Amino acid sequence: MDILQEVTAIAKKAKDAARHVASISTEQKNSVLHSVNRLLQNKKSFLQKENEKDLQEAKKQNLSNALIDRLTLSDNVLEAMASGLDDVAGLPDPVGEVNRMWRRPNGILVGKLRIPLGVIGMIYESRPNVTIDAAALCLKSGNAVILRGGREAINSNLALAAVMQEALADNKIPGAAVQVVPTVDRNAVREMLKLKDYIDVIITRGGESLIKMVYENSRIPVIAHYKGVCHVYIDETAEPGMAENIALNSKIQRPGVCNAMETLLVHKKFAERHLASLINRFRNAGVSIKGCEKTCAMADGIEKATEEDWHKEYLDMILSVRIVESMEEAIRHIACYGSRHTESIVTSSYDKSGQFLNEVDSSVVLVNASTRFNDGNQLGLGAEIGISTSKLHSFGPMGLKELTTCKFIVYGSGQVRE
Amino acid sequence: MDILQEVTAIAKKAKDAARHVASISTEQKNSVLHSVNRLLQNKKSFLQKENEKDLQEAKKQNLSNALIDRLTLSDNVLEAMASGLDDVAGLPDPVGEVNRMWRRPNGILVGKLRIPLGVIGMIYESRPNVTIDAAALCLKSGNAVILRGGREAINSNLALAAVMQEALADNKIPGAAVQVVPTVDRNAVREMLKLKDYIDVIITRGGESLIKMVYENSRIPVIAHYKGVCHVYIDETAEPGMAENIALNSKIQRPGVCNAMETLLVHKKFAERHLASLINRFRNAGVSIKGCEKTCAMADGIEKATEEDWHKEYLDMILSVRIVESMEEAIRHIACYGSRHTESIVTSSYDKSGQFLNEVDSSVVLVNASTRFNDGNQLGLGAEIGISTSKLHSFGPMGLKELTTCKFIVYGSGQVRE
Repeated sequence: MDILQEVTAIAKKAKDAARHVASISTEQKNSVLHSVNRLLQNKKSFLQKENEKDLQEAKKQNLSNALIDRLTLSDNVLEAMASGLDDVAGLPDPVGEVNRMWRRPNGILVGKLRIPLGVIGMIYESRPNVTIDAAALCLKSGNAVILRGGREAINSNLALAAVMQEALADNKIPGAAVQVVPTVDRNAVREMLKLKDYIDVIITRGGESLIKMVYENSRIPVIAHYKGVCHVYIDETAEPGMAENIALNSKIQRPGVCNAMETLLVHKKFAERHLASLINRFRNAGVSIKGCEKTCAMADGIEKATEEDWHKEYLDMILSVRIVESMEEAIRHIACYGSRHTESIVTSSYDKSGQFLNEVDSSVVLVNASTRFNDGNQLGLGAEIGISTSKLHSFGPMGLKELTTCKFIVYGSGQVRE
Repeated sequence: MDILQEVTAIAKKAKDAARHVASISTEQKNSVLHSVNRLLQNKKSFLQKENEKDLQEAKKQNLSNALIDRLTLSDNVLEAMASGLDDVAGLPDPVGEVNRMWRRPNGILVGKLRIPLGVIGMIYESRPNVTIDAAALCLKSGNAVILRGGREAINSNLALAAVMQEALADNKIPGAAVQVVPTVDRNAVREMLKLKDYIDVIITRGGESLIKMVYENSRIPVIAHYKGVCHVYIDETAEPGMAENIALNSKIQRPGVCNAMETLLVHKKFAERHLASLINRFRNAGVSIKGCEKTCAMADGIEKATEEDWHKEYLDMILSVRIVESMEEAIRHIACYGSRHTESIVTSSYDKSGQFLNEVDSSVVLVNASTRFNDGNQLGLGAEIGISTSKLHSFGPMGLKELTTCKFIVYGSGQVRE
């Protein structure tokens, strides 16, 4: 069987399973999630043995320690996965909801019924915990899912798939509801992206080159979780203590994630009084600064930021800093260099807070709060499959509801059109 | 300037204009719509003279009378366009709405703010009235739009574009908010479909080959308005008079449109008692019938439907008829041959109405009402840019709200992540 046939067979089975999982009860779905949770504990040694194969291979390939760390299914990671399953089980089931119905003059009653999307193709990189998180969210929202993780995690992902298969079988739900593509052949992804008769949406999380490849090859609608070049703008009206806390937290609380700040924009009047000390605090925390010309003049040894730096998602203890003449200049900078992910303003001005919220075109825009709040849990969605930086269907963190759509239902009593 | 440069210049200007139209007031947008309305009347002779060029060319090319009819900017068509503009002006502006906000335990206040999509690329076939309808809906929802109609309507579309340019200028809004691609070169569409840095979504309405071409070439998310192979299923429990009215209305009230019925599915018990007379009524109305074997046995001279016929969108006075053993068989037939557009059941059974509404995977599912109600106006959305048969972002008729998305906004008071 060639790779196209293999992937097509997976997708066809997923489509059949999707019809089944669309109609099972919330209790059944939660029961599967609890089964997976139990099995993660019972099969811990099997999972860690399979994971060890990936870790050995990663070491042979000289992958970075950060990458190896993200690959590892430690006891802590397995426990976090298990508690994530309980969290998803505890969330309300979005399927079947009708928010409101309205009656038309001819008497028909019209409403929108929330339904699953169908078959979700999930293409992501290395972290094996995404395999369980994504499967749980897709299943709870009534979708079938085809998971395609990074080649580095293939043994871990197949072991996790075996656990999920057992949990599905225990609950008499077709195993094809959750499938892991069992090959590391890169052509499998390219073939998968063509199967628009079977797969309803592609969700992709990963680096720039993966996202680009998916966009270029997909015949299926894509929701991309693209890079986060996030900005904090400190206005001249900002309360200095609050501004420093928010800037520091946005950068250093967890620098390796997409909602960490990469560029700090500072109003010139705030900069005159407070930027030198703020730069000191960043440096003491271990952050290296790249600055615009004016910033470089503020302290010794600041590297000049290049045009490329303003576009960069460092995911590291590096920060670009630019001094701006006005909020309007900050908003223009964000429009030019940002990635529509997360931007925050620190201000005490009512008018400026409103203008910034309205004019900045990003998935999450905040006033007087850390960029690190762009997260499904933090914003109250319960859990997230990722953060969409594309506007269609969903913009920002995607929870269970964002994995569904609505169809119109109409109750009539014999109405016809005149 | 080659065609890629030309289309890229249009798209760049649209992106700049999109930032402007996203923030103009409802009054300004309505004022443009009223200006277009006035100009359609004042410039009637200019519009009809330009339209005449297209009609002459169409006659030279021996296009069908139906097509020529759809091309014609008659007084009636122009009046309907004008009153459509008033309707759109009268609809509530979806931009800026925040449905609800919620406070998180740390005190941040979170909400979703409705915003325009940005730049919409609209690719459609021959009817020039779509040019005005689509432009009005895109503008009212705060988007910039690039319109690419059929080559047959190019002179009419450019004349309508000139009218809209004048209306925009009168209201001091950038002309790039509404642009018509000024060339019939087919490569213009292919190039346009690559410009994902400038165009946020492609909406396409037209025949199978157009939709296929768009899907195959687009790097931009596509919302497709694909064919409607719509079904009415008459259950054994149907009230006969109601069933006949709904079946007839669904087919013959306007057979050339996407929400007209193409296939009638009849429970065998209803068929035994009533199908022969229903077929007679269809034939008296001028509809030719293609039937399954059992249907063919019911009356003389019924052509046998082929496998291909069950997939067909006739858009004509032709109807496929199949007798089924059960509602489940009808639902399976729809899943196999339907296009997820519109399906209706006629039944007096409470249980069956619920099962049909839940299990049929179409953009509009009706009980005891004509398929012809799948329409933005009929369902109460006010107006529609088309009917999406793809599930992502919007499924079913797309009104103003479906031309927008939401971003998260957060009001904080200094919160950072622990």
